Amino acid sequence: MSKCLITIAYDGNPFNGWQRQANRPSVQECMEEACAVIFGHPLLVEGAGRTDAGVHAFGQAAHVVLPRPFPAQRLIPALNGNLPEGIAIRSSIEVPDSFHARFHAVGKRYVFRCVVSRIRPAVGRGYFHWVRRSLDMAAMATAGQHLLGCHDFSAFATNPGYVRLRGTIRTIQHLHIAKRTWGFDLVIQGNGFLYNMVRIIAGTLIDVGLGKMQADRVPEILANRDRRQAGATAPACGLYLLRVLYPNDLSLPAFQVDAEEEEEEEDTA
Amino acid sequence: MSKCLITIAYDGNPFNGWQRQANRPSVQECMEEACAVIFGHPLLVEGAGRTDAGVHAFGQAAHVVLPRPFPAQRLIPALNGNLPEGIAIRSSIEVPDSFHARFHAVGKRYVFRCVVSRIRPAVGRGYFHWVRRSLDMAAMATAGQHLLGCHDFSAFATNPGYVRLRGTIRTIQHLHIAKRTWGFDLVIQGNGFLYNMVRIIAGTLIDVGLGKMQADRVPEILANRDRRQAGATAPACGLYLLRVLYPNDLSLPAFQVDAEEEEEEEDTA
Repeated sequence: MSKCLITIAYDGNPFNGWQRQANRPSVQECMEEACAVIFGHPLLVEGAGRTDAGVHAFGQAAHVVLPRPFPAQRLIPALNGNLPEGIAIRSSIEVPDSFHARFHAVGKRYVFRCVVSRIRPAVGRGYFHWVRRSLDMAAMATAGQHLLGCHDFSAFATNPGYVRLRGTIRTIQHLHIAKRTWGFDLVIQGNGFLYNMVRIIAGTLIDVGLGKMQADRVPEILANRDRRQAGATAPACGLYLLRVLYPNDLSLPAFQVDAEEEEEEEDTA
Repeated sequence: MSKCLITIAYDGNPFNGWQRQANRPSVQECMEEACAVIFGHPLLVEGAGRTDAGVHAFGQAAHVVLPRPFPAQRLIPALNGNLPEGIAIRSSIEVPDSFHARFHAVGKRYVFRCVVSRIRPAVGRGYFHWVRRSLDMAAMATAGQHLLGCHDFSAFATNPGYVRLRGTIRTIQHLHIAKRTWGFDLVIQGNGFLYNMVRIIAGTLIDVGLGKMQADRVPEILANRDRRQAGATAPACGLYLLRVLYPNDLSLPAFQVDAEEEEEEEDTA
């Protein structure tokens, strides 16, 4: 028996989110079936968290307990050879038996990608959100600064009342709007996110950029803890889970796409 | 009656290429049906050239003769409102009756996009080619320089014997390998291209990058005019038609994506 922590990239479009469910293809199901081919029976692949249908991942994390000794590195080609092309294993390391991909995660980093153009972008729909009117990105950055740090994010969550174990208080460690020639990337990292939180933050910042909301309304929205005061939930197709963060002794190898995002950043904050 | 020259972006994945054909969805068919909704009957939409199934376009060009007076600019929202989301009209200008989108084109600019990574890229398949092994981009640039200028490109065409009217001699005006964090873009502009020529050039340069072919074999391959000596035809999904070039008096407005490609270039040649 050995336990592995693996990082997984996947395309959100062909799958109905991470979590296994009846009659709909999920990333977790594909992972577990690939394990069944290798080990003779399905294994539980426990993700660091769910991603909704349409959300992409460059660095989802998951652990799996292997039923027999198996080198962690060999799991990469073994799984990739049995997965559909929209899913790819990027790394695999052995971890202690006590490790848990979800309980030990100390943070997540996402990017929300948005194209801004008067004419609809025809190529690559499903890989970004689209806003037609130009955005005041300085105002968006100001609004984003109000979200940094430790807050009750009830106003920025779908069904915050369902959150029992961990409550609704989270810390956002980084948030910036990286301006691109074609629009912007919203890069955001926190110690955890409530349901739909990144997408509601994206929708709210877009409202600020469009002039529908003042940047300095954000502290009030946080304080009121009223979901109706924040912006709409932006579409899943713009969202990418870049990386799940673990304490340093379990840190995963940095991978290209993440590095690229960080290099290309032009922080307008 | 008035004639318009329009530029069109489209996603290569949902359509079976530009040209109308029985029982398979094509971009031309969608365009002609959108015209039918606006004008009451289908109009011939004559493209600057065909693109194969899977090839994307940011700036395909086409002309259409309108059966009644209609402002060229108004054609943009009118068509976009009747086209699927994978096709978008980017510009429309009035042109003289004598204008022909295909006969008057003096060149085309393409980009061939390739991701280089050991692990297969899971997100966004269908929008780039993928090479697993690292590439010697300096050698690729050297090979590319041999293709610049006026040559008989028979070795770089599928079925060059079918070309009758215009022969097999073409001029490549620009060719460079723009190195990216994730791989490369091959940007290429010429006064015209034979069938599959850009994709065969891409396949040949990749062979050079992989060390399967020496860069200085290219002049010999050109001289021998033997298709079998050049590399494989690289997949359609990596190819984007960026722009169709017309004489200056008909030049179209520069558009974002094209500008972006040009800005981001890091010429390794």
